[in-house]
Amino acid sequence: MEVRTKVWIEDENGNSIFGDGRMQILEAVDRLGSLNKAAQEMNMSYRSAWGKIKTAEERLGLHLVESKLGGGGVGGSRLTPQGRELLDRFNKLSQEIHELALSHFNELFNR
Amino acid sequence: MEVRTKVWIEDENGNSIFGDGRMQILEAVDRLGSLNKAAQEMNMSYRSAWGKIKTAEERLGLHLVESKLGGGGVGGSRLTPQGRELLDRFNKLSQEIHELALSHFNELFNR
Repeated sequence: MEVRTKVWIEDENGNSIFGDGRMQILEAVDRLGSLNKAAQEMNMSYRSAWGKIKTAEERLGLHLVESKLGGGGVGGSRLTPQGRELLDRFNKLSQEIHELALSHFNELFNR
Repeated sequence: MEVRTKVWIEDENGNSIFGDGRMQILEAVDRLGSLNKAAQEMNMSYRSAWGKIKTAEERLGLHLVESKLGGGGVGGSRLTPQGRELLDRFNKLSQEIHELALSHFNELFNR
């Protein structure tokens, strides 16, 4: 048995704006220095990955990913400071939530 | 925008053993004093609701719901002490996780 947790942000229509999927894109951009490579690694088209980030940026009102050279992503992409903060916070939040769940779970079952 | 959280327990094959659905059944049993009425309220068959509780009991190793009169649920059903503890803990855990997410979310967006 294992306790699982999930956290995400929804818009007013119940559509996910930011969650595990977009987190993985940001993490891959940060690691690979390229939205194109991030999309490839995730078996997504560049267009689809870009669309997901764009939607999140518009809905959240945050700039998350920028081109390193300013032109079309040819020179690679990187997280903006806001993108990095969102990534770090979401990682921290996911981890804290999981630890909270684990401690309740252990108290209930392993005694 | 709204932050959403979810917590559930999975078995080793990734199947959910306990989460929101079974929580709602336990809450309804507690409120209505009957698994049959609980199933009706949730638009489930008695058989299906009973099956979900039975599976959870077997996998968790806890006795969750008992018959008031000892015979087939005719006299109504109630939570066992273990069922009540699981219900209370899951409610508490869900609430704490949501509050944690809200506080991170507010720090990130509402400043």
